[in-house]
Amino acid sequence: MSRLIKRVVIVGGTHGNELTGVYLVKKFQQFPDLLHRSSFECTTLLANPEAIAVNRRYIDRDLNRCFGNEDLANPMLTGYEDKLAKQIAVELGPRSQPKADVIIDLHSTTANMGLTILPSSHCPFNLRLAAYLTTLHPLVRVCCGVQCSQDAPMLRSLSPLGCAIEVGAMAQGVLNAAYLQQTELLVHGILDYLDAVNQGELLPVPPSLDLYQVHSSIDYPRDRSGELQAMIHPNLQFKDYEPLRYGDPIFLKFTGELILYEGMDTVYPVFINEAAYYEKEVAMSLTSKQQFILDNM
Amino acid sequence: MSRLIKRVVIVGGTHGNELTGVYLVKKFQQFPDLLHRSSFECTTLLANPEAIAVNRRYIDRDLNRCFGNEDLANPMLTGYEDKLAKQIAVELGPRSQPKADVIIDLHSTTANMGLTILPSSHCPFNLRLAAYLTTLHPLVRVCCGVQCSQDAPMLRSLSPLGCAIEVGAMAQGVLNAAYLQQTELLVHGILDYLDAVNQGELLPVPPSLDLYQVHSSIDYPRDRSGELQAMIHPNLQFKDYEPLRYGDPIFLKFTGELILYEGMDTVYPVFINEAAYYEKEVAMSLTSKQQFILDNM
Repeated sequence: MSRLIKRVVIVGGTHGNELTGVYLVKKFQQFPDLLHRSSFECTTLLANPEAIAVNRRYIDRDLNRCFGNEDLANPMLTGYEDKLAKQIAVELGPRSQPKADVIIDLHSTTANMGLTILPSSHCPFNLRLAAYLTTLHPLVRVCCGVQCSQDAPMLRSLSPLGCAIEVGAMAQGVLNAAYLQQTELLVHGILDYLDAVNQGELLPVPPSLDLYQVHSSIDYPRDRSGELQAMIHPNLQFKDYEPLRYGDPIFLKFTGELILYEGMDTVYPVFINEAAYYEKEVAMSLTSKQQFILDNM
Repeated sequence: MSRLIKRVVIVGGTHGNELTGVYLVKKFQQFPDLLHRSSFECTTLLANPEAIAVNRRYIDRDLNRCFGNEDLANPMLTGYEDKLAKQIAVELGPRSQPKADVIIDLHSTTANMGLTILPSSHCPFNLRLAAYLTTLHPLVRVCCGVQCSQDAPMLRSLSPLGCAIEVGAMAQGVLNAAYLQQTELLVHGILDYLDAVNQGELLPVPPSLDLYQVHSSIDYPRDRSGELQAMIHPNLQFKDYEPLRYGDPIFLKFTGELILYEGMDTVYPVFINEAAYYEKEVAMSLTSKQQFILDNM
């Protein structure tokens, strides 16, 4: 029987100030036996060494938006992260024939996302793996971004199999031992699951999976010069994955005025007040909750 | 009767990525009537505009360590923050005859410090003011750093009267509405208190004040190259101001080993896992809890 999975890559430090992934990868590099499974090779990558060295998200631009096919093929893009993305794409890609079968990219967030699995594509393999991970810890949620495919500009999209793991709420530039331990638990869960797949065994999953699908984002209210006019309303802060209904407050202006959610559909916001998304003009992303039945997958 | 307090300055953005102070000062600049009191002038200062613009703590070095008398007098120090400190010292100082009678400097921290008042000196005026603030919100704590005098290199030390306010736990680079509101409550409390003082009235304070006096700091365990070998133990994370006793775990090594607190005296750690203090080699500061009797002050 041919093995489905031959090479797995665990990535940390795609964002240099998200220390959970940075230090977990350093730990795996120091103790490589932790990653050893009999049926595949597992290696590690600290993706953005310069950003890690200066404890910032990036040097020139967000590395995790540099992996679009057009950008990778564009020789005019010569910033630090653009060049780095091209190197990483050679090492792990190309998309048409990836050298990494599964990529796991470790992140953290200032939003209260618990242990969020962001599958690299909607393929049944990824959803079943994500469903398995929900059995390992009660904080696991599964969320697909708008760009959840191999056309996405994220590092993880170099392979169709795998996911990013976003843990939080935690500040940038700090190590949080509990989140590091929980992320490590999920990495081991993924490796065990993949090893079982290679042995022809399917580890048990729940009959259905709740998947939060991002469909849009909301920016902070700003004036003409781009200056913030409001903050996330205190009732919404840290309420990622909780239902937001017509009339619920979403922003509090510095004048004291409220701004209410006026959509007719109940949505489930994620990445609420993520520090790195102020510059991306995203105060939160809105998801719909979808249930996938897994027994036939 | 001569007024004790003639000019009060509210400072935000001494650290450019601590947005509570930045946006509260911007709010006060937009609505200056909020700061109006009949008996003194109150102005605002966004201390580090370049750092605010790029959402970083500082450009060249920590502005809040640039106000030592020797550094202010040293023409060889020409980094961005060194020059800025000299300008601010002209505007608010000099120490021998400050133009600002009271300086309130607004900060935030990734440590779980609640609403911490850091008085600019141990003078009875500051301690009584701090005691008054403890009556306004249950999260108020009063802490004096090792350098709690006019010899300190902090901006606030340009005047003997006043304090820094440290709110958290919150991430750098985010606005948290609840902490902004609580900080604003304290600023108004301070202004009301000072206005009453000028009128010859002393607002009521509790009979005693618990003051947490920093006496030392502990760095993270590191290897010879300075690389971290451990994290704050999960039991200690977010436990600022709680008693730490002989044998309690303080660090968890990446190997899984525990490092225990071995001091014989019970201490009360603060600034536990503050993001900005990794580079200062401070994992936490240790305080002793002192009770001040206030009725004769």
